Amino acid sequence: MEGDGGLDVTCLNKYCNSSSSSSSSSDQDRKLFMKLKLNLSGDYPRKNAEFLSGQYGINLFLIGVALMLAVARDNPSVEESHLLAFVTCLMVLQLIWMMWYILLRERRKNTRTERDVNATTSWIRGALTVLAVLSLVMDAFRIGYFVGFSSCLSAAYAVYPVVHATHTIAQVHFLWFHIKDVVKSLEIFERFGVIHAVFTNVLLWCNGVMSEAEHFMNNHIRRLSFLDSENITIVASEPVCNSTTSSSTSSLFSRGLVYLFPFNVEYHIFVSVLLFVMWKNIGRTISSNKKSLVTKSQGLTLGPILGLLALASTIAVLVVYITRIEGVLELRQSAVSMFYIYGIVMLAVMCFSGALGLLIYRADHVPLDTSKNTSRQLDTELLFGSSLGSWFMSWCSIVAVLCTESKASYRWTNFVYSIFIVLEKYLQNLFIIESLYRQQERAERSDPELLAGSEIFSVTSSMAPPFSGIINRAYETPDKTPEKEQEESREVYRCEEQQEEQPLNMKRLILKNIAVLLIMCNASLWLLPAFGCRPQYDNGLEQDIYGFSAWTTVLNFAIPLNLFYRMHSVASLFEVFRRV
Amino acid sequence: MEGDGGLDVTCLNKYCNSSSSSSSSSDQDRKLFMKLKLNLSGDYPRKNAEFLSGQYGINLFLIGVALMLAVARDNPSVEESHLLAFVTCLMVLQLIWMMWYILLRERRKNTRTERDVNATTSWIRGALTVLAVLSLVMDAFRIGYFVGFSSCLSAAYAVYPVVHATHTIAQVHFLWFHIKDVVKSLEIFERFGVIHAVFTNVLLWCNGVMSEAEHFMNNHIRRLSFLDSENITIVASEPVCNSTTSSSTSSLFSRGLVYLFPFNVEYHIFVSVLLFVMWKNIGRTISSNKKSLVTKSQGLTLGPILGLLALASTIAVLVVYITRIEGVLELRQSAVSMFYIYGIVMLAVMCFSGALGLLIYRADHVPLDTSKNTSRQLDTELLFGSSLGSWFMSWCSIVAVLCTESKASYRWTNFVYSIFIVLEKYLQNLFIIESLYRQQERAERSDPELLAGSEIFSVTSSMAPPFSGIINRAYETPDKTPEKEQEESREVYRCEEQQEEQPLNMKRLILKNIAVLLIMCNASLWLLPAFGCRPQYDNGLEQDIYGFSAWTTVLNFAIPLNLFYRMHSVASLFEVFRRV
Repeated sequence: MEGDGGLDVTCLNKYCNSSSSSSSSSDQDRKLFMKLKLNLSGDYPRKNAEFLSGQYGINLFLIGVALMLAVARDNPSVEESHLLAFVTCLMVLQLIWMMWYILLRERRKNTRTERDVNATTSWIRGALTVLAVLSLVMDAFRIGYFVGFSSCLSAAYAVYPVVHATHTIAQVHFLWFHIKDVVKSLEIFERFGVIHAVFTNVLLWCNGVMSEAEHFMNNHIRRLSFLDSENITIVASEPVCNSTTSSSTSSLFSRGLVYLFPFNVEYHIFVSVLLFVMWKNIGRTISSNKKSLVTKSQGLTLGPILGLLALASTIAVLVVYITRIEGVLELRQSAVSMFYIYGIVMLAVMCFSGALGLLIYRADHVPLDTSKNTSRQLDTELLFGSSLGSWFMSWCSIVAVLCTESKASYRWTNFVYSIFIVLEKYLQNLFIIESLYRQQERAERSDPELLAGSEIFSVTSSMAPPFSGIINRAYETPDKTPEKEQEESREVYRCEEQQEEQPLNMKRLILKNIAVLLIMCNASLWLLPAFGCRPQYDNGLEQDIYGFSAWTTVLNFAIPLNLFYRMHSVASLFEVFRRV
Repeated sequence: MEGDGGLDVTCLNKYCNSSSSSSSSSDQDRKLFMKLKLNLSGDYPRKNAEFLSGQYGINLFLIGVALMLAVARDNPSVEESHLLAFVTCLMVLQLIWMMWYILLRERRKNTRTERDVNATTSWIRGALTVLAVLSLVMDAFRIGYFVGFSSCLSAAYAVYPVVHATHTIAQVHFLWFHIKDVVKSLEIFERFGVIHAVFTNVLLWCNGVMSEAEHFMNNHIRRLSFLDSENITIVASEPVCNSTTSSSTSSLFSRGLVYLFPFNVEYHIFVSVLLFVMWKNIGRTISSNKKSLVTKSQGLTLGPILGLLALASTIAVLVVYITRIEGVLELRQSAVSMFYIYGIVMLAVMCFSGALGLLIYRADHVPLDTSKNTSRQLDTELLFGSSLGSWFMSWCSIVAVLCTESKASYRWTNFVYSIFIVLEKYLQNLFIIESLYRQQERAERSDPELLAGSEIFSVTSSMAPPFSGIINRAYETPDKTPEKEQEESREVYRCEEQQEEQPLNMKRLILKNIAVLLIMCNASLWLLPAFGCRPQYDNGLEQDIYGFSAWTTVLNFAIPLNLFYRMHSVASLFEVFRRV
């Protein structure tokens, strides 16, 4: 009996769960129960485990959003400290899980862990570390702020930054040493741990975005009421407190916090993306094909020069805009006009570069790489998804320009600018996605057999047309399976390699220049809204059409997404730069 | 020269685009241009074509949403007739494309078109036709409404229903005869056509949801102001018109429209899902594995009986609720309490069934089918995505119950009900997804070679434990590729088949009963909100915490999603019923 049970265990987890088919059907019930017990602890189908943990994560997130919605009201019944307490609990849970995970790995140091080489690169980790350090500074400011108002603030305001700082340090350690791990043991438990970490970071991101939007709104309303003396009441962002001692330093901290928000927000969204890739990788079998990307930089002149020019003019525009927007009506209008004209020139250059890149790809037919690569797929989906915010904002602007009766000087420049925003993202996304999916050249160059094959092929293809036609038709069997197509496309590819003699030919040089230029332009377009240059708040056209609350809601959703898009496209374009 | 060009054509589109590698590099530019021209008309990489058209579709949708946002304002600058004109244009474009497509197919009648058998079933097409007929009735009502108010309504209100009716008829014809087509010619153009159709339907859905929400809100506000005499002004839903002739019949049409909205909304979302599957299938190579699903119904007793009981009690609850909710405060509170108690019982039964189904699956280990199947993957994603609305609503309720100071009798029943809603969707999604992904049994039964294989395998696996262990380990090579895993799982599967002797064994019988019960319960839970039983509007708890506008916004987003979820899960569960 016990021997039979033992057999079942071996069998169940590996290949077969009905080993004892010869047994009678009377004790089927007892067996069913045993199998059940074994299966519950044993291997659970991967697809289901994904949904099981994914649903947990989403629900965690929705609880947080429901709390935020309750807090966001004018006279909330739910206090902000409740929300902070909830988020703190999630962070503590994540800390416990991370510690457990790290200790487990430490103990199993000897067993080799599989790693996904595509998951992250050293420069992403470097950038994350910088963002994390800025987040730590922010936590320090938060503690300082609490000290100033400690008499009238809940303890949650003190516990939160302390836990957040610990969480940041532990998480960066985790990202440095474990983010590439492909988990193969205790899969279900680890899935829950990772997805918990993902959505904790997403919630922290949401919280950051909410705070940032609130601050920006207060600022905007203050400016509106100051300049146009409209009847909007200013919402006090600081607590009403009896003890006025040291409140000036606390205000200083509070003002310092504002400049650190953008970095904290980017930090959390980046971390959650990396953790999501880790989650998707759990239980996968990774085919390791680490390609050594050699970044050659000869012949890079036009791209960097234009890019630096763009970056310099951006900083100039930013400074002029921020100083003028606080001035009288004429100065403000000229600042907005200047922004749009600058934007149109910038975006036209970017559109042209993107279109040129796509045309070069059309002239140089290379089959796409269809192998599974989680982080690449996620990259493209994020690029596409985060474009939505900016596209929606642009279409709202276009509708507003067409319907408004305003005579503002920047009415039609706003229109052209918005059209260009749509077009530029459209082309840039296509360019990035095609670049990431193209099979890398020179990867199989060293294989002598392939070269021989291409030799033969190129001979046949340089024959007289009718003959070549016959041969080609012979290849084109009606029952063409995907594998065969793949094979064929590889043939194309081999024979194409033939042509490239120079280490860095003309086409690749142009592509590299385009990538560099686009990186700098995207960085410029990130810089502007991140540091307060948001003409969508200041031009007044859309606000007339949609009303104040609807339009600011759209902006509060779209601008953070757009910031993320710009950052993400810089990262993707850097990848493109290394690949082409 | 010309011969060379001709060679290029043959070569480019099939296998090679660098046939003339022996040519000098001086005329490279001219060649590049020729290739470019050829490639632009030739094969564009599939991944890019998807993004190219997908981005177009999304932008179309965003324009529509921007217009809706502008119209939704209290004193809009953009009139509703503008929105209707825009949607009408989109429908006309779709009509032209559909006609073109149908004519093209007609002309190429002789060539066999590949078809995706998974794309739709005859009962889905039947249900769609019924929904389409109700949409046509709605169009007739709209025309009647226009006739009544023709003197003060824009012409767009007349053109819209006429075009919509034509569009509905043409679209149903298209769905009946072409939705399963796998397009292989003119792929890029067809992609644009199909995605245009998808997003036209999505926009029509959005428009319908907006109208329905507006109507429900008006009704709700009317009731509030009538019962509690609150100071909310009633928004007139009928145009202010000088000609009062025949306006009473027009009001009748307007009231009739209200009951037809839910069907129209479901029609458009269903069509867009089907078209999306068609879009995903463009250019794919479908492996045809049509399985004959024989639906056996012996032994189905408990499921249908309980299901009918649920359906009957639902209708009773619906009638009582709708009559009582118009009454005085005590009657209204009792109606809300009744709803929650009924819901708890219902959901507890559903949770129990779902959990039982999952336990049976755990006891009966079958490998999951990992082959590519676009419509199945979309099904699961839609199920997951549409759960979000209801989950969010539930978490908002839970937060509200925990924070409120209200002493309402239904406070804690609301809490339990919301918890059950979350749990029920969680379990049901897992159950449906696992059911759809499990490999179907008996599919390869007839193959004698497989049976022989399983014979051998079962012999080895019934050996003494140590020996079996060795064999098993021999299979487990470290470089296990996905194909091999597939192979192995098929082995398991073969050996499992051995066990099933009866045509419909105990486990499958239970699963079938569960599926039937869940179908009826989901239909019940669709019926209630679709016909106006929405206690979330009437209980007042959440409204206290989130405020009127925020909470109604949440409901306007969540309730349509929940309606779609219930309908979609009925369809999925029917599929489960046929498979198990």
